[in-house]
Amino acid sequence: MQSLKEKIISEGRVISDGVLKVDSFLNHQIDPQLTFDMGKEFASYFKNKNVTKVLTLESSGIPPALTTAMELGVPMVFAKKQKPMTMKGDVWVERVFSFTKQIENEIHIGKSFLSTDDKVLIIDDFLAHGEAALGLASIVKQAGAEVVGIGIVIEKSFQEGGRKLKDAGFDVLSLARIKSLTNHTVEFIED
Amino acid sequence: MQSLKEKIISEGRVISDGVLKVDSFLNHQIDPQLTFDMGKEFASYFKNKNVTKVLTLESSGIPPALTTAMELGVPMVFAKKQKPMTMKGDVWVERVFSFTKQIENEIHIGKSFLSTDDKVLIIDDFLAHGEAALGLASIVKQAGAEVVGIGIVIEKSFQEGGRKLKDAGFDVLSLARIKSLTNHTVEFIED
Repeated sequence: MQSLKEKIISEGRVISDGVLKVDSFLNHQIDPQLTFDMGKEFASYFKNKNVTKVLTLESSGIPPALTTAMELGVPMVFAKKQKPMTMKGDVWVERVFSFTKQIENEIHIGKSFLSTDDKVLIIDDFLAHGEAALGLASIVKQAGAEVVGIGIVIEKSFQEGGRKLKDAGFDVLSLARIKSLTNHTVEFIED
Repeated sequence: MQSLKEKIISEGRVISDGVLKVDSFLNHQIDPQLTFDMGKEFASYFKNKNVTKVLTLESSGIPPALTTAMELGVPMVFAKKQKPMTMKGDVWVERVFSFTKQIENEIHIGKSFLSTDDKVLIIDDFLAHGEAALGLASIVKQAGAEVVGIGIVIEKSFQEGGRKLKDAGFDVLSLARIKSLTNHTVEFIED
């Protein structure tokens, strides 16, 4: 997605060989127009998959998941990192390891929001080691529903998440795939 | 906002005299079309305020804040409950007491995302005791920027948040104002 790549070049900051900071448009401040264009890209690619629900993980996944769900005309669900006090009992739980923070988090989805008929499109802002996407996919499977695709805004292709998701048989669309962040320079994999 | 009130009646669940559960369309699963209509309502009401930025608090504030920002053509910023590891130094911090959880949380906004020129519209999903909105407003003030309005999806008018925000001089628009939740029944304040 050309406009996204241009935004990464103009506003992204390479913090280290592994960390790209994009909080001026994706993780903290959000560019609404770009987010809507991301939604259109995801919706266009997955439009023949009969998606019934878009699923993401709070918080940075919410904007692109919402615009994708809007474009597809289906509900969006975001998994929660903390179990809400009003969400008693029937909750799917999965453990997700965060390499960035080096801790294991639980993610939660109310059982009433995934049914065996659901065809789920998972959307997330970043793909690095693949833990979040795999954790969401595991909950979809527990619910007896089907993952019909995974949409990622920025894939750090030099880490193993993309390969793990494809090896597991998922149809993955990444809007920008980063080959390398060495020498404080963003290098993309060209499509 | 009539469609919101109808959704609250059809899908909201009164858990107690103080708690309304709306996680099928606002807090966990999101109804994209309704969220876009909320954005249009907020944008229409505040359109003459020269808003330069929409501000909210993760996570449930993000969907209506995004659609409002889209409609107004300005960026959206969401305050974070945890200080991100890549957000070093220059961060505004405020303490916000959560009555629901009976704990004090810190909220964080990167200093680069609020400037003295900003006219900020605060958006949040719920207004109860007003702590979150006042915490966000306090950060806007610290940054030397101006709060030009506060938009709330659901105001629990039987709690003191609405009065506190109006007493502080803020222009508040609540899309649905709830007078009472007693007898497991939602009673609205009619406009």
